[in-house]
Amino acid sequence: MAQQHLEPTDPLAGPVTGDALAGYLRSQATEFLRALRQHRESGAQAQGPEDPVDAARALRRSVRRISASLHTFRPLLDPDWSEHLRPELAWLSGTLGMEHAYESRLERLLLALHRLSGAVFPAQTSAVVGGATPSAPTPDRGNLTVGAAKAGALLDRQLTLARTRAHSTALQALGSSRFHAVADNIAVLASEVPLTPTAKNTPLHPHATAAEERLADAATALPLVTAGHPYNAEALIHGLSPDPSPHPQDAPWHQVRLLLRLHRYAREVLCGTNPPVEVRLLTAGQALDRHRDASEAAAAAAAAARTPRIAPATAYALGVLHADQRHEVEAARFAFQQCWQKQAVST
Amino acid sequence: MAQQHLEPTDPLAGPVTGDALAGYLRSQATEFLRALRQHRESGAQAQGPEDPVDAARALRRSVRRISASLHTFRPLLDPDWSEHLRPELAWLSGTLGMEHAYESRLERLLLALHRLSGAVFPAQTSAVVGGATPSAPTPDRGNLTVGAAKAGALLDRQLTLARTRAHSTALQALGSSRFHAVADNIAVLASEVPLTPTAKNTPLHPHATAAEERLADAATALPLVTAGHPYNAEALIHGLSPDPSPHPQDAPWHQVRLLLRLHRYAREVLCGTNPPVEVRLLTAGQALDRHRDASEAAAAAAAAARTPRIAPATAYALGVLHADQRHEVEAARFAFQQCWQKQAVST
Repeated sequence: MAQQHLEPTDPLAGPVTGDALAGYLRSQATEFLRALRQHRESGAQAQGPEDPVDAARALRRSVRRISASLHTFRPLLDPDWSEHLRPELAWLSGTLGMEHAYESRLERLLLALHRLSGAVFPAQTSAVVGGATPSAPTPDRGNLTVGAAKAGALLDRQLTLARTRAHSTALQALGSSRFHAVADNIAVLASEVPLTPTAKNTPLHPHATAAEERLADAATALPLVTAGHPYNAEALIHGLSPDPSPHPQDAPWHQVRLLLRLHRYAREVLCGTNPPVEVRLLTAGQALDRHRDASEAAAAAAAAARTPRIAPATAYALGVLHADQRHEVEAARFAFQQCWQKQAVST
Repeated sequence: MAQQHLEPTDPLAGPVTGDALAGYLRSQATEFLRALRQHRESGAQAQGPEDPVDAARALRRSVRRISASLHTFRPLLDPDWSEHLRPELAWLSGTLGMEHAYESRLERLLLALHRLSGAVFPAQTSAVVGGATPSAPTPDRGNLTVGAAKAGALLDRQLTLARTRAHSTALQALGSSRFHAVADNIAVLASEVPLTPTAKNTPLHPHATAAEERLADAATALPLVTAGHPYNAEALIHGLSPDPSPHPQDAPWHQVRLLLRLHRYAREVLCGTNPPVEVRLLTAGQALDRHRDASEAAAAAAAAARTPRIAPATAYALGVLHADQRHEVEAARFAFQQCWQKQAVST
């Protein structure tokens, strides 16, 4: 959406400079203000064609891009302004993302429970996967075993409660003076980007290249040889570890996911709407999103299993579910490795 | 071992006939009698260099080969004799195999629990894997979580009890008049094979080829395209199914395992000690053995989880363990597919 406002960059027109960064930031700020207006309007007439979920997604979308640009092209921007705004954008992005995260985690886990029960997926499931409806109906539990049904009910309770809290927190945030300050800042950005005096003619490429190199270095440091061997059984290796913290082996993959996003947004700034290998980057990014989602779903299943006084059948189902999601983590690493190797050859 | 007694078959010496079958059966019968003598002697002086476990394995080994030959080359053998002996051999092979099956199942599950706990394998583990000792020490449980340790203890109790019962059953069987009748039959076989009147000059190839075709047909009917896609998540698809019976999807793979063994033994009859692609057949067979072992270990973990009054942490660990072993089932199918496709190309 945002890129429609961006003037396409002609590669023959000389190096891309701070001017393009200013244009990109202006368009993202405009996008933010539009989504905010949409969110407020849809709040009044609930469930309209432009619903608050879409609006919240559009808000997060522009906030992430502004935040990433402030990070990657930091030397071209007024340091006081950008150092003040960046943590505020991180707070906003994090706060707005939680509700959706809990919702999709629950959907992922309930769908997995159905798959593990050999159940035929109910018709509404596809709508749930598509994420089209804000409070999507959960799949029918009629044909689950007792353990799977109880595990599903437990996860439903816990994650719905977490989602409801995240929803309240997000609403509070959007009404807070802290948010109004951020919104004012972005409103200014929509008309006037605080570049440094020399930035207008400073080339963007070195900064974008540095972001790409940070990504390449981090991806190279991943255990890709292991990941490329199917069924290496690495992802579950601490599945019953006494350490209750999330799997430490996942962290470098999460980091690559963030660096890939920064690289992708930097390319948007440089290349406009049609960066040449965008599809490959998207595929790699999807694999890493799946990695993150499965990792967090596995942790949620493990956490639910620590609920006091649950039945053994419930705990058993949660154990199977946890291992299934760790299996998904391993599958996502394999998918990333396959896609990344191709990319390394062709670029 | 057995093949050392077999005269190597010269491929230029004309078609292999019932004569070679008689030679093979005689050598296997001799092997059986030697293992039986060894078993009786080692029973007196326990844990000698030739221990009763090795002797029992050698007994099973020759029984399986005699039984397979009776099946594959049925038309060349006296029908009354072979139809009477075959079920007796099946009984003996099954009875003698149970103790070892329970023992290796327990070892597999305890090693998996250690792996899943991220524990460093204790030094004695390699001896356990090698299966060198009859009552192998189980891995140290010191660094397992409470759930994993309790799951290990539960499986240890249940499978050790089953193994002890299987041991008694096998000892009773070896002392029974039913067994003595089988042994007498095999003793006769060591000197005189009851071929049909025309069998001596009947070529073996058509029967061996039929066995190979039964294998090829059954392998072709397997879902190999799915199995060749890593992380297809098929093996766990009924992991929480209300159906308590073993996974029906495993049965065709178990069947191919048996047909592969029949084919391998038929090749031994025809080609003697050095069949050309024996290594590949062994690799495929090992993948199917692993498939069977993981399938049964997964079922044992699921069965243990149905023990009344277990702690939720125990049930959770058994759920993770079950899923891990189903993951192994899927990995074994992938390994078989990889190896089988190669074979199809090169032969």
